[in-house]
Amino acid sequence: MDKRGIGVFDSGLGGLTVLKEIKKILPNEDLVYFGDTARVPYGPRSKETIMKYTFQAINFLLTKDVKAIVIACNTATARSLVEAQEKYDIPIIGVIEAGARTAAASTKNGKVGIIGTEGTIKSKAYNAEIKKIDKRIKVYGKACSLFVPIVEEGWANTEVARLTAKEYLKELEEKDVDSIVLGCTHYPLLKRTIGEEVGMEVKLVNPARETAIDLKNILIEKNLLNTKEELGECNYFVSDINEKFPSIAREFLKSKIEVEKVEIQRY
Amino acid sequence: MDKRGIGVFDSGLGGLTVLKEIKKILPNEDLVYFGDTARVPYGPRSKETIMKYTFQAINFLLTKDVKAIVIACNTATARSLVEAQEKYDIPIIGVIEAGARTAAASTKNGKVGIIGTEGTIKSKAYNAEIKKIDKRIKVYGKACSLFVPIVEEGWANTEVARLTAKEYLKELEEKDVDSIVLGCTHYPLLKRTIGEEVGMEVKLVNPARETAIDLKNILIEKNLLNTKEELGECNYFVSDINEKFPSIAREFLKSKIEVEKVEIQRY
Repeated sequence: MDKRGIGVFDSGLGGLTVLKEIKKILPNEDLVYFGDTARVPYGPRSKETIMKYTFQAINFLLTKDVKAIVIACNTATARSLVEAQEKYDIPIIGVIEAGARTAAASTKNGKVGIIGTEGTIKSKAYNAEIKKIDKRIKVYGKACSLFVPIVEEGWANTEVARLTAKEYLKELEEKDVDSIVLGCTHYPLLKRTIGEEVGMEVKLVNPARETAIDLKNILIEKNLLNTKEELGECNYFVSDINEKFPSIAREFLKSKIEVEKVEIQRY
Repeated sequence: MDKRGIGVFDSGLGGLTVLKEIKKILPNEDLVYFGDTARVPYGPRSKETIMKYTFQAINFLLTKDVKAIVIACNTATARSLVEAQEKYDIPIIGVIEAGARTAAASTKNGKVGIIGTEGTIKSKAYNAEIKKIDKRIKVYGKACSLFVPIVEEGWANTEVARLTAKEYLKELEEKDVDSIVLGCTHYPLLKRTIGEEVGMEVKLVNPARETAIDLKNILIEKNLLNTKEELGECNYFVSDINEKFPSIAREFLKSKIEVEKVEIQRY
């Protein structure tokens, strides 16, 4: 039994969708969330810059004495997970392996679509993971850069969102994919809009839940579970707090949270 | 006569629209551009964070021995110009004073609209500047957070852009404004889409040209003009270079540029 907490890192607030799933699967664990809101979004940045930002986030979380870290951001996972795992001694897991596994299990016609940020799609990280599982599966990626700002504007269920989804998804529809990975933590909030566009017969895969299950298995395997009876605590840190913060946090968590600001450049 | 260059700072690449105007008005001056592409956009960030980023940008430009600095970003001007002018000895000008002056001169019915990022609109910096000129002018601000990502996606003239413009601008249309300030350096690229929505009778004010004229006047006044006969050189620096960079830069400048990367956190 290990009482230390689990670090959850995201480029901003999208990772709260992953944190929510971890809370459900591991209710007794203490969690420490860090969102890099001073430098969000990571989607359009270079690999080098994303690696630097990820290492700073991990360095910060380590000061909170965490026993494991979840990189709850597809872009950061795609661009820096392998390097982070090499650099640090504690278990670090991303969201892509779980998402890839779920997609591979879900497709019937062997055609999977991946939607995400520019960084995630350009990295082809999902393609590589899915090919590891089954080489025959065809993987089609599509960067949907406007989805994150649309969600943050609170426009997920508007005509603008629908038209944007139509434009982005037509390529995947033409490829006849039967499963689409929501490869960005903001996208579950667009699930209805995306679903209406591609139709009920296309399965939308959200890697968050599978990631939480992976995390639990790793904690069990490494004998790191917290077996206390009380519910775990959750502490939230961000690198910038702007006026819009409370409303976006509410959008993701459906509850109010207290946050503390971190000077992330120092880590 | 002063041969030192002029620093032009923007949160990203939007400031290239201002740089273009400076080149036209002051063709003999050497220019040093810095775009903070590792931390763009500034629009949604807090005043504190934007001030820190602005000071780092100015510190970097000072290492290039510039004689004056233009903050070619509305958000950075709104949130940090006054503090930067207090902190540094060389002339520093923003884009808002010029935009406000042009809007005040342009309106006939005394009703002006300002569109910009969350940060610019929340700061009410345009309101304050316009009120200084004429207290009777009514100023209506509207944050248009999706316009920047739409421009960066290359979607400025699409149906998504038109629908988004319709949604954002209906408030200003209801207020019967006859002039709208394009209070973000990305927005001139949306001029046609915005113009089609609000109609020909509404004047769209682009602060870039007036800012360049202001700069010229300040250089003359302070005896800082470069009176050499040859055309000035232009050097470009950014804090991150991603794969999309060349296409976005081309969108703004209509020509290819060479850029150098700067570790801006060190300044």
